[in-house]
Amino acid sequence: MIPRYSRPEMVAIWSPETKFRIWYEIEAHACDAMAELGVIPKENAEAVWKAKDVEFDVARIDEIEAVTKHDVIAFLTHLAEHVGSEEARFVHQGMTSSDVLDTCFNVQLTRAADILIEDMKGLLAALKRRAHEHKDTVRIGRSHGIHAEPTTMGLTFARFYAEMDRNLNRLEKARYEIATGAISGAVGTFANIDPAVEDHVCRQMGLEPEPISTQVIPRDRHAAFFAALGVVASSIENVATEIRHMQRTEVLEAEEFFSKGQKGSSAMPHKRNPVLTENLTGLARLVRMAVVPAMENVALWHERDISHSSVERNIGPDTTVTLDFALARLTQVVDKLVIYPDNMLANMNKFRGLVMSQRVLLALTQAGVSREDAYRLVQRNAMKVWEQGKDFKTELLGDAKVTAALSAEEIEEKFDLGYHTKHVDTIFARVFGSGDD
Amino acid sequence: MIPRYSRPEMVAIWSPETKFRIWYEIEAHACDAMAELGVIPKENAEAVWKAKDVEFDVARIDEIEAVTKHDVIAFLTHLAEHVGSEEARFVHQGMTSSDVLDTCFNVQLTRAADILIEDMKGLLAALKRRAHEHKDTVRIGRSHGIHAEPTTMGLTFARFYAEMDRNLNRLEKARYEIATGAISGAVGTFANIDPAVEDHVCRQMGLEPEPISTQVIPRDRHAAFFAALGVVASSIENVATEIRHMQRTEVLEAEEFFSKGQKGSSAMPHKRNPVLTENLTGLARLVRMAVVPAMENVALWHERDISHSSVERNIGPDTTVTLDFALARLTQVVDKLVIYPDNMLANMNKFRGLVMSQRVLLALTQAGVSREDAYRLVQRNAMKVWEQGKDFKTELLGDAKVTAALSAEEIEEKFDLGYHTKHVDTIFARVFGSGDD
Amino acid sequence: MIPRYSRPEMVAIWSPETKFRIWYEIEAHACDAMAELGVIPKENAEAVWKAKDVEFDVARIDEIEAVTKHDVIAFLTHLAEHVGSEEARFVHQGMTSSDVLDTCFNVQLTRAADILIEDMKGLLAALKRRAHEHKDTVRIGRSHGIHAEPTTMGLTFARFYAEMDRNLNRLEKARYEIATGAISGAVGTFANIDPAVEDHVCRQMGLEPEPISTQVIPRDRHAAFFAALGVVASSIENVATEIRHMQRTEVLEAEEFFSKGQKGSSAMPHKRNPVLTENLTGLARLVRMAVVPAMENVALWHERDISHSSVERNIGPDTTVTLDFALARLTQVVDKLVIYPDNMLANMNKFRGLVMSQRVLLALTQAGVSREDAYRLVQRNAMKVWEQGKDFKTELLGDAKVTAALSAEEIEEKFDLGYHTKHVDTIFARVFGSGDD
Amino acid sequence: MIPRYSRPEMVAIWSPETKFRIWYEIEAHACDAMAELGVIPKENAEAVWKAKDVEFDVARIDEIEAVTKHDVIAFLTHLAEHVGSEEARFVHQGMTSSDVLDTCFNVQLTRAADILIEDMKGLLAALKRRAHEHKDTVRIGRSHGIHAEPTTMGLTFARFYAEMDRNLNRLEKARYEIATGAISGAVGTFANIDPAVEDHVCRQMGLEPEPISTQVIPRDRHAAFFAALGVVASSIENVATEIRHMQRTEVLEAEEFFSKGQKGSSAMPHKRNPVLTENLTGLARLVRMAVVPAMENVALWHERDISHSSVERNIGPDTTVTLDFALARLTQVVDKLVIYPDNMLANMNKFRGLVMSQRVLLALTQAGVSREDAYRLVQRNAMKVWEQGKDFKTELLGDAKVTAALSAEEIEEKFDLGYHTKHVDTIFARVFGSGDD
Repeated sequence: MIPRYSRPEMVAIWSPETKFRIWYEIEAHACDAMAELGVIPKENAEAVWKAKDVEFDVARIDEIEAVTKHDVIAFLTHLAEHVGSEEARFVHQGMTSSDVLDTCFNVQLTRAADILIEDMKGLLAALKRRAHEHKDTVRIGRSHGIHAEPTTMGLTFARFYAEMDRNLNRLEKARYEIATGAISGAVGTFANIDPAVEDHVCRQMGLEPEPISTQVIPRDRHAAFFAALGVVASSIENVATEIRHMQRTEVLEAEEFFSKGQKGSSAMPHKRNPVLTENLTGLARLVRMAVVPAMENVALWHERDISHSSVERNIGPDTTVTLDFALARLTQVVDKLVIYPDNMLANMNKFRGLVMSQRVLLALTQAGVSREDAYRLVQRNAMKVWEQGKDFKTELLGDAKVTAALSAEEIEEKFDLGYHTKHVDTIFARVFGSGDD
Repeated sequence: MIPRYSRPEMVAIWSPETKFRIWYEIEAHACDAMAELGVIPKENAEAVWKAKDVEFDVARIDEIEAVTKHDVIAFLTHLAEHVGSEEARFVHQGMTSSDVLDTCFNVQLTRAADILIEDMKGLLAALKRRAHEHKDTVRIGRSHGIHAEPTTMGLTFARFYAEMDRNLNRLEKARYEIATGAISGAVGTFANIDPAVEDHVCRQMGLEPEPISTQVIPRDRHAAFFAALGVVASSIENVATEIRHMQRTEVLEAEEFFSKGQKGSSAMPHKRNPVLTENLTGLARLVRMAVVPAMENVALWHERDISHSSVERNIGPDTTVTLDFALARLTQVVDKLVIYPDNMLANMNKFRGLVMSQRVLLALTQAGVSREDAYRLVQRNAMKVWEQGKDFKTELLGDAKVTAALSAEEIEEKFDLGYHTKHVDTIFARVFGSGDD
Repeated sequence: MIPRYSRPEMVAIWSPETKFRIWYEIEAHACDAMAELGVIPKENAEAVWKAKDVEFDVARIDEIEAVTKHDVIAFLTHLAEHVGSEEARFVHQGMTSSDVLDTCFNVQLTRAADILIEDMKGLLAALKRRAHEHKDTVRIGRSHGIHAEPTTMGLTFARFYAEMDRNLNRLEKARYEIATGAISGAVGTFANIDPAVEDHVCRQMGLEPEPISTQVIPRDRHAAFFAALGVVASSIENVATEIRHMQRTEVLEAEEFFSKGQKGSSAMPHKRNPVLTENLTGLARLVRMAVVPAMENVALWHERDISHSSVERNIGPDTTVTLDFALARLTQVVDKLVIYPDNMLANMNKFRGLVMSQRVLLALTQAGVSREDAYRLVQRNAMKVWEQGKDFKTELLGDAKVTAALSAEEIEEKFDLGYHTKHVDTIFARVFGSGDD
Repeated sequence: MIPRYSRPEMVAIWSPETKFRIWYEIEAHACDAMAELGVIPKENAEAVWKAKDVEFDVARIDEIEAVTKHDVIAFLTHLAEHVGSEEARFVHQGMTSSDVLDTCFNVQLTRAADILIEDMKGLLAALKRRAHEHKDTVRIGRSHGIHAEPTTMGLTFARFYAEMDRNLNRLEKARYEIATGAISGAVGTFANIDPAVEDHVCRQMGLEPEPISTQVIPRDRHAAFFAALGVVASSIENVATEIRHMQRTEVLEAEEFFSKGQKGSSAMPHKRNPVLTENLTGLARLVRMAVVPAMENVALWHERDISHSSVERNIGPDTTVTLDFALARLTQVVDKLVIYPDNMLANMNKFRGLVMSQRVLLALTQAGVSREDAYRLVQRNAMKVWEQGKDFKTELLGDAKVTAALSAEEIEEKFDLGYHTKHVDTIFARVFGSGDD
């Protein structure tokens, strides 16, 4: 986790304070359930809640852990310092450390997912707004980085919207994947603890009970979670790459918003670098790199080994913090992206109508010219544009063989941009729905 | 794709014959829709279906492609050889190669997903059967590879069932992710082709129209697809790892079925190697390695670049073929796995009752002994077992300090296996439902 | 391995025929060594060489393997069909299958490495030639895709040369990593075979004896090998990305060579797609994806498990074949790359001298103007260029505050391209050496 | 970077304090070189060294950066606060931020590499010591987790030694890969700064001048660096996996050292978990996950984009800190590993001599028995051992058909462990050299 690429709300989920708070709640709820079952005295369960408003002393817990070399025992020892040794004696009874650790981790992940889902909704709102704003802003569509046919900037935003909307769905599924808890004991048999305890704790913590756990919650869930984050990150890279391309000097169809304070801008006005989207490209790599280790974590030995733990201590916070930051940054970039419609038109016309050559080719064929002849006709005029800087439409209008097949009006019509944008509304309705937005 | 790790049905999906057949169907359905719209003559659309029963000549198409250096054009040229040049003249009109290629790829992926889904159901059936067969077969649960508390072999199968059931769900979602088609032209604007064509073709091919495409179908879909396969593969590794552990000489709680023909078995009866599950471990790595490149494929330049294509030519077939083979192999392994309940008991008793030490500790505490004293009592008896080979229960029964707190009956009860298996039915009901199975 | 992305020489290394030939040689040389040691009769060793010119019948071996389910035994059975059962009885004595398989695999990898090394030398030659050809072809250097300061096309080629030269070195080290063989028996103790046999076989096969093996050659070697290939692939992507950028419509500083036969070129002369370098970008992902599984292969259980085998059956051929193809393709792309120096100049001048603003800024500071004032002076003139399309130098020459600090001559000098290219020879000498090339 | 998995010396390399110190040195040395060249006044260069003993105020620099949004400018501003605005005016002249950043990063990486190299030497020493200590400690070798033939614990340590020795070599090469610096200006042309400055700075900082850079040092170097670390991590996993296997309850051939303070040990003496090596398995995944993003960093756009930066801010510190910790932890584990030779013997004899069956088979064949007959003879005696718990040697000695081919003495000899260990010295000499160790 790199401070400059993190936001406090997400960071807070992963603080020791939050972790101990969640541990506490799990233990306290478990005591309630055990008391309800008559396994432990009610007063002991109630006593645990005395610590309800305590801010646990992380340094003190660390100090105890330095001796016990066991984090949960250290916490329980510290808890007893607040609740009283005698009163706290039934806390954690029949439970195993992983019951606390794994359930806590999933609470943290669901909270992280909630933030990411909100982030994504914010991004969607920005994309939708910009899509409608530039629904009819024509620019050249490019395949292979080469001019193909016209499209609109609104369609570009709309496709990012559709992609991120799928990602919203993936995040929701990812949240569902890890929204389980387990209080099932040393090997998951509930030998020492009743399943009703698990049920109560999970409901209180906003989780579903894991149908079958071992000592741990199965890690295929987490693999699926981090894989979903990897897909989201890849989509962020996708949008970022588009913007980086748009901002390059020769294209200049858009620029990241450039705040006044940033040095060096106006003495070198050409030198506004798309550093935010370049940064997002790198952040995407960071999020993505968690996918493989999360998958390697699935095959734990027997009822558990602890190899997954160090991995998760890293990728749990790092991946969610980075993705949260990246989504927020991208939202801001999209929101404030400076669009240059004039440059879009200028770029499209760079080769004076040549991008329409395919349409002319098709029209000639449809007018009955053989494929070969049509090709030759387009070619000889195209080459004059390409090599001598002529205007394509003018050349076509002056070519008798062409005008023999297509009227001047028909030729003009081939250069009508409306031809290319006629289905934009249809597509927008498919993406955003047909109601008002 | 390695022949020895492939099965014909899945391989067939990826043959050139199948590909050209799908291309053909896409083109023919597109002609139908265009004829319906009045864009091309009905007779031309009908003429295309003349090739309905043709087996396309792959060698011939390759030959043409060697000249045209364009696979779709090569195919269309060959198609015209069957349909007639004149009749075929409207085929592919207004379409771009990717309309055919991408829609075809998704048809192949959905068919592959269908097979994988069936594979998974087969695996689930095997796991369920073995789970019920060994519901009460007690064995020791292990954390960190070290004996912890008893569990049952049925629970082991049941947790794999639950994991694979989640994977079934992931495969179904993965199928949904890539079950779209696009016939939207050079940059996705439908400039040269009506959206109704896309709609018709997709319905006929069993796909949903992609709400917004560029020249290509967005690759976040494919990234999500291959990521799901990577999770499934990781679960396969998980099951395989368990079996490999169970078969090792010192454990020998299970063995892969060993067919008679295999050399070397009975002269070295101890030397039956878990080669199938080791192989599955490797195959899991192969499936998983497609995840990152599939994610790297998402950020295509502008309306498309073709960098994804070579990646998909590889991972499309290789990953699905390998996973299909792996699922089938694992199903067979599970189905025929030889289980040794006696060895399970023998292993559990390796340290003469020591695995029950935690239960005794808990009982002592509950009987009012202080945590420290209880610990010391358990410890001194445990060490006699550990160092001198004594029996734990016998030692406890002979320790006056212990019997002062716990009656002989109570001590006996701590060694009752039923204590550990009492919730197996509850867990089974959670995993398999409460009806008859 | 995708046929269209493969070349026959590399493919041949991985054919069953080659594999059996290598197995044969290993077995025959081992017999020689054993005969030399007096462990087996000389005549039996000699008899094995009877099969020296035999082309082994792959189908027949497969047939036997279908029964024995063991590839090496199948081969040995077939070999006995050529050599005679009696004569062949000592073949493979004291050896384990892995002695043959692993040594063979490393023979194949070293041969593959030899080809890759030659490929790399070919690429280096092309890069060097083009570097010298365009040593003084000025173009704009870009950071963040934005114009920065002038550089030359020769420097671009030269840096790719230097990078690929490092890769040549990495390939040579990678070859060294896997150029070992092992004939050390079931667990690597030489219990059943003398180390002298290993020594003889390795020398004959062009390998070093592995200092200490188990049943297998340690897989950290292979991990290092495939990691090196991944780095090379990443460098290929680097060069490919540069060319893709250069070819995009708005930049058009270079184009991949476009062969006459390719359809669609001259009717749409603007539509020449950098498909080769896009393809190389995808191929790089394919080579890179082998790195992680190769690393996962390192931690085999005890003296070996066979999980690595299926991985290597795939990545062995696929990665080397793909990288061979990619290097050859890149060499051709570089060799024939069409360079457009005029477009380079035109691009550089897109903003009429603004790229020199930093130099002017520096000159003003050096002339004693304070940083703040210099900045303001540059800024006010730059903005006129940026917003009103003026020429930067002209504006500066007309700004009294500027001319008060810098003479017209000094200002002119700031726009001298020679300033930027003055160290090109120095750099070339560092990259290519100072002799004639 | 997770505090619990980090050591202070390596962490210090990545502190802001260290970074600013290195930046300072680079700038100061550059001033010296410029003064030497006569480009700036000597007194200004000397003035910079006034800050020689200053501890830069990180908070103050952050404060300035919050305004300038540029880290290098913020540092230079702060430096001027120490040196004096006037005196500091030539600092950084002609340089670009990356000259400082990239050179600094490589200084940090080389220092990190130095620590890793020392770590590795420490690990090698431990492995060597334990190898010699257990050179003759016989234990069973295992393939596929199944007993194969005897080997020794010393050979196990020796092969890890050999593997780590290769890793030492890889680390040294990795260090070499990134031990370069660049002071070459905005696009690497030295337009604004003489190559002599780069040369001087690099020599002073312990680096080689990068032969050709752009704005940045080429990232194939860093990819190779992190790839090497990934290989080392995989080897750590390899050793860790072996120890985890040895410690499992049923095997118990070794245990991680268990410090007295650790709770729960002696009351459950069977429950000593190999948590350190499990942790190392996870840490290996963390180190390895940096390899792919480091490779994705290679293809920067043109003369640089900044996508690599966020990746390196993470993997630079995280990977080196984690690997340093892992190597140190592994060294300690190896150093203190508790070995149980008696259990090794007991495990080997688990199937009463069956592990010798292959040797007997070979002996029978060599004694002239046909392969088929020999196989049958071994088989029928082996089955009695396997199924009825008999002793293999006893059965053989009592089988007339066997004793017809082999004398009792010859049979006895087949069970001689010395047969398997006879080449241990040879192998040790190959691994450790033949001198005294």
